[in-house]
Amino acid sequence: MKTNEEILELFENHLAQIQLPEEPELLYAPILYSMSGGGKRIRPTLLMLVCEAFGGKLQEALPAASAVEMFHNFTLLHDDIMDNAEVRRGKPSVYARWGKNVAILSGDAMMIYSYRLLSGVPADKLPRIMEIFTNMALQVCEGQQYDMDFENRRKVSVVEYMNMIELKTSVLLAGSAMIGAVLGNASESDCKKIYRYALELGLAFQQQDDYLDSYGTIEELGKRIGGDILEGKKTCLMLNAMSRASEEDRDILRFTHLDQSLSDEQKIERVKEIYDRYDVPHTIQQQISLRFERALSILDTLEIPAERTEHLRIYAQNLMDRKK
Amino acid sequence: MKTNEEILELFENHLAQIQLPEEPELLYAPILYSMSGGGKRIRPTLLMLVCEAFGGKLQEALPAASAVEMFHNFTLLHDDIMDNAEVRRGKPSVYARWGKNVAILSGDAMMIYSYRLLSGVPADKLPRIMEIFTNMALQVCEGQQYDMDFENRRKVSVVEYMNMIELKTSVLLAGSAMIGAVLGNASESDCKKIYRYALELGLAFQQQDDYLDSYGTIEELGKRIGGDILEGKKTCLMLNAMSRASEEDRDILRFTHLDQSLSDEQKIERVKEIYDRYDVPHTIQQQISLRFERALSILDTLEIPAERTEHLRIYAQNLMDRKK
Repeated sequence: MKTNEEILELFENHLAQIQLPEEPELLYAPILYSMSGGGKRIRPTLLMLVCEAFGGKLQEALPAASAVEMFHNFTLLHDDIMDNAEVRRGKPSVYARWGKNVAILSGDAMMIYSYRLLSGVPADKLPRIMEIFTNMALQVCEGQQYDMDFENRRKVSVVEYMNMIELKTSVLLAGSAMIGAVLGNASESDCKKIYRYALELGLAFQQQDDYLDSYGTIEELGKRIGGDILEGKKTCLMLNAMSRASEEDRDILRFTHLDQSLSDEQKIERVKEIYDRYDVPHTIQQQISLRFERALSILDTLEIPAERTEHLRIYAQNLMDRKK
Repeated sequence: MKTNEEILELFENHLAQIQLPEEPELLYAPILYSMSGGGKRIRPTLLMLVCEAFGGKLQEALPAASAVEMFHNFTLLHDDIMDNAEVRRGKPSVYARWGKNVAILSGDAMMIYSYRLLSGVPADKLPRIMEIFTNMALQVCEGQQYDMDFENRRKVSVVEYMNMIELKTSVLLAGSAMIGAVLGNASESDCKKIYRYALELGLAFQQQDDYLDSYGTIEELGKRIGGDILEGKKTCLMLNAMSRASEEDRDILRFTHLDQSLSDEQKIERVKEIYDRYDVPHTIQQQISLRFERALSILDTLEIPAERTEHLRIYAQNLMDRKK
């Protein structure tokens, strides 16, 4: 069995071989720019690892792996327009570099292209894989819409938030894993289990993302600490605190980021003081551990020998350690 | 065999039965709004007529017919953002009614949904139909990009223009027809021929659209005559005139729409005077007739009995007569 690093290399080589047309340049150049802009390739890697764990051929997993990566990059392209985000992976976003219209249209072409890549899976598996892929893709759109809805709402419950991030981010990881399982000829029951494994992992990853934004180091996060607090973002920390805090503290949580008399450092400190007082960081870390353990324990129940799941354990650990 | 009207009714009934989720409302309500906003359904009707002509089952054609209609409406949604178009079929566009972000995201969901509908075709035909659909969809994006490119270019040749409208509009009609042929178990040679039939017809239709905008009646066009001239649009009339006119007349063609000393009527009159002088309307009408005749003559060469192509002749005639 190939290691996670070998699989990543195999995937990058495959991706580099995909030939896009040269014309019209403003349609295809942004796709190349987006796809070669780095990214951790966490979805295609998982798809291939799962396929291999069930004894499938890695070569047969490459088209679907490219499809999920292309789809993921498409969502970033369109999200950046909707969020007016000018930077992506340390470079100008497609939206910032080429403008709104180019970002809309080349994003559209990427999504269509992801279906072209997907159609490279074995024909007998195409209907099933297309169904998983399409359900997943629609759920990602639903998640993005809820995310935008929540920005304009005063009150969002923790449950609503978790449902939103499940749709917006975890479902893509879970769908990728399930496609890998189908390609590896896993049983229907194992397909569902592996979906659940990746879903829990994705939620843990996303919650950790929220946690590190306030409590991580610059090295772990890759950017300045406290950004979410300064934006007044509804993260799992914020919503958890809101659900426990007194009316007075809730007002502080709500309005601190708008208080022009405070420096950025003071705003961050003031909000974190409330988080700490209500034991929010500890609660969130417990939830993350619980999800992580739940994900790993699902692997014990698969119909394949334990040693075949070893790389999926390492993958989960790497994801949480942010080593990749 | 069912008539064109019966097929349209069958299609509308099928479309009305598609159940979209209710939540998130801002994702799905615009899709319903767009799909029930009328439209001539020319692509799904052709797909079904072709399927029937080759002896296929109409019931089996409904999923793909819905898919091409959904895809077509998706392109309108995103085009309206790119063109800042506030009106579509006499109603506010999704972009005007709900804003840019909702139009981007519900457009994305429509495109994904069109693949969900497409996956309802018989499984053994799915790989082939997905290939046709995906090629067609990418070409539509290419056409839209060329269209935007041309707006910023001083000089566009007639050949470049025809290539652009082929990609932007005819390919979708041609791909729809070809999918119908595949569903009707047509031979590979007949699939290609029916593609060509619809491609020629689509080009004739588009050229007639340009022609009527300057030389039609309000009844034929459904809106005020001369809109293209007032916008300074590069239509097939304009590009044809540019390719023949003297340097002096070319300047008039280029700048009349910007001349603030002229009324709209004077602008239209001045440009049409040049068109007439260079025999442009007659030339374009000849091209339209030629393409129309070529489309019909392709039907004579199919491997099916002539009477089975009767509805495809009526369809072509109706399309050019704008009866539907």
